[in-house]
Amino acid sequence: MSIALRIQELFYNVMPITRAMGVVVESYDGARLVLTAPLAANINHLGTAFGGSINTLAVLSGYGLLWIELQDAECHLVIRESAISYERPVRGELRAVCVRPEAEALTAFREKFQEKGKARIALDATIESEGRVAARFRGTFVAMR
Amino acid sequence: MSIALRIQELFYNVMPITRAMGVVVESYDGARLVLTAPLAANINHLGTAFGGSINTLAVLSGYGLLWIELQDAECHLVIRESAISYERPVRGELRAVCVRPEAEALTAFREKFQEKGKARIALDATIESEGRVAARFRGTFVAMR
Repeated sequence: MSIALRIQELFYNVMPITRAMGVVVESYDGARLVLTAPLAANINHLGTAFGGSINTLAVLSGYGLLWIELQDAECHLVIRESAISYERPVRGELRAVCVRPEAEALTAFREKFQEKGKARIALDATIESEGRVAARFRGTFVAMR
Repeated sequence: MSIALRIQELFYNVMPITRAMGVVVESYDGARLVLTAPLAANINHLGTAFGGSINTLAVLSGYGLLWIELQDAECHLVIRESAISYERPVRGELRAVCVRPEAEALTAFREKFQEKGKARIALDATIESEGRVAARFRGTFVAMR
């Protein structure tokens, strides 16, 4: 089973709202994890994507990326804080792209987790629509033993 | 029909994900709009409330409050940006409380909307669980003609 499909099954098994949203883990190429969700299940009062769903898809892209990075570690992963700016409406499929952090930041995160049993890392994700950035998300995630 | 029930029907009619989340508009007393959602539909991998759902419930509390405030106005309402900090896990029902802004801020918002056809306002919401604050949200919303 591909890693993308494994993450999607994990979402569906442990976070039921991801089924209702129609979240699909589209791809992971080692540098970017891409999630999509259909507009219809996530539509708002203006016929565009609901901001709550846009943020949720970005959060999920962060969890997914860290689950891939930490798959051998015995840890709990939580989100501590996040910020998002909505720059343009999403008129079709929602698409969240979480970028793998620089190798240095990941190494520092892993080392601190090994040493202290707790470490945090900031992740950036964008929401894209029709090939353009529609929203920018930054979240801080914490791994705990 | 109570204003709380009218807002809940609006959510269900225009944002289908609110049904899947089990969002309930519990009360509006003129100062605070209170929304709830059951844990089961919004659970995460740790058996607590998923951060995405916590943020979404806060966004909805902001929309709801502004819909109540602007119910006579012909306007589109969107969220422009937001930030949230997650302070403790939510182990039961999710409960979002959006506080009505100071009268001065609301008056300035209404006047600018009347004059320019566009105005923004910041709203604060908390997510509570078992009587304690579990997350703090601030969002900037924009009304446009």
